[in-house]
Amino acid sequence: MKWAQPIVVTLRTMRTLSTLVTCHARHRRMLIRFAGLGLGAASFTTALAAGSNYANVVDPTYDVSKFMAEPLTPRSTLVKDKDDIKVKMELFIMKIQADFCRALENEEDPSSKFFVDRWTRSEGGGGVTCVLQNGKTFEKAGVNVSVVHGILPVDAVRQMKARGKDLIGKELPFFAAGISSVIHPSNPHVPTVHFNYRYFEVTQENGEKMWWFGGGTDLTPYYLVEEDVSHFHSTLKKACDAHDNGYYPKFKKWCDDYFLVSHRNERRGVGGIFFDDFDKKSKEECFEFVKSCAESVVPSYVPLVNKHRNDPYTSAERDWQLLRRGRYVEFNLVYDRGTKFGLYTPGARIESILMSLPVYAKWEYMHSPPDGTPEAKLTEILKNPKEWI
Amino acid sequence: MKWAQPIVVTLRTMRTLSTLVTCHARHRRMLIRFAGLGLGAASFTTALAAGSNYANVVDPTYDVSKFMAEPLTPRSTLVKDKDDIKVKMELFIMKIQADFCRALENEEDPSSKFFVDRWTRSEGGGGVTCVLQNGKTFEKAGVNVSVVHGILPVDAVRQMKARGKDLIGKELPFFAAGISSVIHPSNPHVPTVHFNYRYFEVTQENGEKMWWFGGGTDLTPYYLVEEDVSHFHSTLKKACDAHDNGYYPKFKKWCDDYFLVSHRNERRGVGGIFFDDFDKKSKEECFEFVKSCAESVVPSYVPLVNKHRNDPYTSAERDWQLLRRGRYVEFNLVYDRGTKFGLYTPGARIESILMSLPVYAKWEYMHSPPDGTPEAKLTEILKNPKEWI
Repeated sequence: MKWAQPIVVTLRTMRTLSTLVTCHARHRRMLIRFAGLGLGAASFTTALAAGSNYANVVDPTYDVSKFMAEPLTPRSTLVKDKDDIKVKMELFIMKIQADFCRALENEEDPSSKFFVDRWTRSEGGGGVTCVLQNGKTFEKAGVNVSVVHGILPVDAVRQMKARGKDLIGKELPFFAAGISSVIHPSNPHVPTVHFNYRYFEVTQENGEKMWWFGGGTDLTPYYLVEEDVSHFHSTLKKACDAHDNGYYPKFKKWCDDYFLVSHRNERRGVGGIFFDDFDKKSKEECFEFVKSCAESVVPSYVPLVNKHRNDPYTSAERDWQLLRRGRYVEFNLVYDRGTKFGLYTPGARIESILMSLPVYAKWEYMHSPPDGTPEAKLTEILKNPKEWI
Repeated sequence: MKWAQPIVVTLRTMRTLSTLVTCHARHRRMLIRFAGLGLGAASFTTALAAGSNYANVVDPTYDVSKFMAEPLTPRSTLVKDKDDIKVKMELFIMKIQADFCRALENEEDPSSKFFVDRWTRSEGGGGVTCVLQNGKTFEKAGVNVSVVHGILPVDAVRQMKARGKDLIGKELPFFAAGISSVIHPSNPHVPTVHFNYRYFEVTQENGEKMWWFGGGTDLTPYYLVEEDVSHFHSTLKKACDAHDNGYYPKFKKWCDDYFLVSHRNERRGVGGIFFDDFDKKSKEECFEFVKSCAESVVPSYVPLVNKHRNDPYTSAERDWQLLRRGRYVEFNLVYDRGTKFGLYTPGARIESILMSLPVYAKWEYMHSPPDGTPEAKLTEILKNPKEWI
């Protein structure tokens, strides 16, 4: 893996006050921003508590000190259970989060950095939400990792059953680790991207444990640049093909079908890949596929940001971007299963779930772009998805 | 009724070309606006076809010529079935629509008038959607009447069953007539109002017909002016008390419970009244109650518009209004049964359903107004609804 780095363990024993102070320094960015946004003592304490778990080498693949924040699972457990897929997934998504945030910060004004919010959930687990808002390049960029466990409530079980999961029982112990991100750039010529990769375990009433992966990456341009969309799809295809030539066509179609705003009969964007209930191979093989997908986010998307972030644009183009963001909101609140699952999970962190919503969105009665315009060209593609490679 | 007017039948035979031309004159506002917004021949033809039904006195209570558009049901049927509650409801909501639109236009710059869009639904029935967008007083005002019939699909039946309706069958013939309105003013010191009054008939598989009324009026201020909220609630209470002293307290609580953004544990606004499955008295008595409620919309709300539409405001206050509109969008897309019912009804007119969404909405990660501010005062009331009278 090109981004793999040797682990640097500078802090070996962290149970003394001096250790906690050192930990402060490592978490400087996080703590300063907590203060800047007026968040109170609770968050500060959370960060301290996290620091006290710093103890040991976790996995030689990862330099934990480069993560955006301390992992959610205590260091001792990460070391003890280092071969458990739950631990591997947590460390992997923390790494992806840091890589993606830093790649985006490279496209930003140096004064705009991600605000890092590490939170815990009283029902079990927590997350690290990174948000960059009102930047020059990014109007809103959110990258969220969550590692949660507890009891899956009836409504959430129902959401899963509707997806074809034949779960036995009404309230089931579960574990979920995932990374989820939505990037809404300022410039209408830079597309929005969304990706989400997740691992689930559910223990049924009969004691049987089910596991599966899910995820996807999809692009939502405001103006269509065919070569950009081809680049995006090609990068995802390459990641898929390394595991199975059948994956890309299958998951590309799944993506077109999933990101459908049915009441308008149009897709949210130009698609990408999407899959769920991914459990037909061994856990390790499935995990390797998910890793390839998540690692393809930066090379598929960031070059498009770099290419267009300084493009000139008109207020009419900005207006069109906001109208399309209204459609994005419609999809997320009416159809998105991840959002629904979140809204039905007690103790879910609403701000991290709804972080996907844009800063501004717009609705106009009966808006329809005139024929022959770039806006109409995009609309046509949203109604009739095509092959890009 | 203070707005009752004698019917004026100036056009008795309308099957000649000259009649159609006269009809054009009556529909001038509608047709001019169709042209202005670039809507094409289809709408024009619809208006002509509507004109060809002009034939007779319908009901001496209503001056049909003052409606925003021709009723949905052909004149001949309106006359033949004039004692049917379906016809009475249709004429009543057309009258309420016209009264409300004109009362709002009185608060507007004279250059801003409602755009009137009369539409038909291939599955049966249609509607009249009136929208005023980007006015001086109203950023977006939508007043929609629909009179639809057909077969209720499984998903829509399920929405009803979830509401406690014990319907027998999977696909049921239905009739629905309703008026629905959301007004989003420009000035953050003018509250948003929503009202909806509707009549339903469903024929079950065993042939048994069920009917009921539903509706409500509720207020969503951005800044709390207690005397305004008291005026609003008092006007609704007066309408309720004329029928049953128990209605207001019951329907006020129902409103507080219904307009709950559960994932944020806050109400959408300061409530009003809300009821559904209203069928415990005779159809006529129920209808009279609904009439009183709908007639109380103008006196409960329009004085607040008049009082505050020229209030000075800051860009920070505008910003707060947009953030609250984000919450309005969350309620409408995630929880509102009317919206869900609409999205699940095939052939439903999406633009008329989503007309309730504001022009602009905003989301900010972890936004929370500082203690002691007017914004925090409103938030407190949204979390803990109170009695206003």
